[in-house]
Amino acid sequence: MILANRPVGIPEKNTWNYKEELIPEIQDGQILIKHQYISLDPAMRGWMNNSKSYIPPVEIGTVMRAGTVGEVINVKNNTNFKVGDFVSGWGGVQEYSISDGKNYHIINDKNNPIHRYLGALGMPGMTAYFGIIKEGKIKSGDIVLVSAAAGAVGSLVGQIAKIKGCRVIGIAGGNEKCKYVKNELGFDEVIDYKNDNIYSALKKYCPDGIDVYFDNVGGEILEAALAKLRMNSRVVICGAISQYNNKSKMKGPSNYLSLLVNRATMKGMVVFDYKNDYPIAIKQISEWFQQGKLKSNESIFNGIDNFYEIFLKLFNGNKRGKLILKI
Amino acid sequence: MILANRPVGIPEKNTWNYKEELIPEIQDGQILIKHQYISLDPAMRGWMNNSKSYIPPVEIGTVMRAGTVGEVINVKNNTNFKVGDFVSGWGGVQEYSISDGKNYHIINDKNNPIHRYLGALGMPGMTAYFGIIKEGKIKSGDIVLVSAAAGAVGSLVGQIAKIKGCRVIGIAGGNEKCKYVKNELGFDEVIDYKNDNIYSALKKYCPDGIDVYFDNVGGEILEAALAKLRMNSRVVICGAISQYNNKSKMKGPSNYLSLLVNRATMKGMVVFDYKNDYPIAIKQISEWFQQGKLKSNESIFNGIDNFYEIFLKLFNGNKRGKLILKI
Repeated sequence: MILANRPVGIPEKNTWNYKEELIPEIQDGQILIKHQYISLDPAMRGWMNNSKSYIPPVEIGTVMRAGTVGEVINVKNNTNFKVGDFVSGWGGVQEYSISDGKNYHIINDKNNPIHRYLGALGMPGMTAYFGIIKEGKIKSGDIVLVSAAAGAVGSLVGQIAKIKGCRVIGIAGGNEKCKYVKNELGFDEVIDYKNDNIYSALKKYCPDGIDVYFDNVGGEILEAALAKLRMNSRVVICGAISQYNNKSKMKGPSNYLSLLVNRATMKGMVVFDYKNDYPIAIKQISEWFQQGKLKSNESIFNGIDNFYEIFLKLFNGNKRGKLILKI
Repeated sequence: MILANRPVGIPEKNTWNYKEELIPEIQDGQILIKHQYISLDPAMRGWMNNSKSYIPPVEIGTVMRAGTVGEVINVKNNTNFKVGDFVSGWGGVQEYSISDGKNYHIINDKNNPIHRYLGALGMPGMTAYFGIIKEGKIKSGDIVLVSAAAGAVGSLVGQIAKIKGCRVIGIAGGNEKCKYVKNELGFDEVIDYKNDNIYSALKKYCPDGIDVYFDNVGGEILEAALAKLRMNSRVVICGAISQYNNKSKMKGPSNYLSLLVNRATMKGMVVFDYKNDYPIAIKQISEWFQQGKLKSNESIFNGIDNFYEIFLKLFNGNKRGKLILKI
């Protein structure tokens, strides 16, 4: 799937071109990977803009960047991999990829389904784990507010905060998602931003304010959260999905001086900074799964030809948890 | 000077009432202080709003809160003070105050003029010292940007950052102030936000971005600064004078996601949190003055009856450094 042009606002169908070609012969040191699952993430929207960010934009005319898991089906003089290895890496939105193996990780794991390496054991899991523990600095008893609580990252953030002894309030859109967040994921409370007044709901569920706000959405929900900060609280800026497809200027939080009044910290995080510690998080999250403390949440859809429609589910709210494309 | 009503936007003359009354007899344990100087601070505007903040608002019908320095002229059974002591405290906008002495500090200091205890050795000095050192976490070689650079706090922030080996760029309004900041205070560069394009000026003076932004103003200058953040940079939110008299909703920084891209921290500070460490800062700042490393900057105006016009100088830019009312 080739990025054909830079979208303004929501991507359109012709933002990408679907292109078929023969798999080239692999060269010395290379491996050929057959993808089984492709990760679809809100961050991908940002990579399509031609603007300075934490990684370079996807170039026009190149394969759309995406995380992948798959099986090594051919190896030419590369002793780090063998045929039959399962690997995760940045394979992009395509059925096969060829690589020198750099930045590919072997995941021969009998305890977890392979696609979990795109979710709880992949980028969203790492983001949630380091975001809430290292950046949010949670401790037992903290009041934690999480937006996009039914999403890939938010659902894990809340569950990890619960494991760590926090009281957790989620924000999600629509009755179905809210039920899922409270009843299945075990959040203490959930606010339906599509149907509840968020200010009165926050007043009801966190009358004494919040210690940590984990922000995936930005916009009005960020403002509402800033209005509830406790002293020395932390705001973790992980994303701003409500703003990613904005055609006009983004909206900043008009009440950011709440940081001053409450001596609060607002800090941006990018998960790649924790790369060296991923193994620690993978081990811990995997353990929590085996102990039944964490619930998996993936929405898996079939077929690379459906990429466009499935990608949009990131933004129209029409999915639960981690969005994955199955090849 | 009695707060008569809560202003909307810029205070008006009838926001306060001037009231004369006889000084009451002091009671057991009390001291009577004759004020010599009254501190005028931007924060006072915030205290006039009936909204939750770091200290309660000034009540309607009570004396306008303000820092003061003066001389103890009567003492009744209070062993902590004697007649002739110079003290600083929260005496309010009036000629005399009566107190049990709690929160009054003796400043019998031969090395510094008494009014400096409202400036570099008072709240602005403490704010600058702890703000740039503890919150800004400056180290030698850092690029530091300071707004309201000719103001009470900003002028000290920049001078302290210079002492600590940073490269310092100030932002001030108008040619006269800018000359003062660069030539007299010794900042490396200065940007005139009234006459320069702030974005091109920042490009010129900090081509590689900034490590610390010390914000006294908010609004568009905060946005411009966020656009220049380096990795792991710090934004210290000390105030937002451009927004204090806003009648409509404040403006939040639309590009706050720069915090994410640059893993930057934005943190609010309130100087009172450092109360226990004030003596350390006073000793250090006083030393710097004796060594000629710090330059004093006060604008002193006469007469409590002129309070209203002088107070407005905080907001119309018509002063340099710390604004002080002399009785």
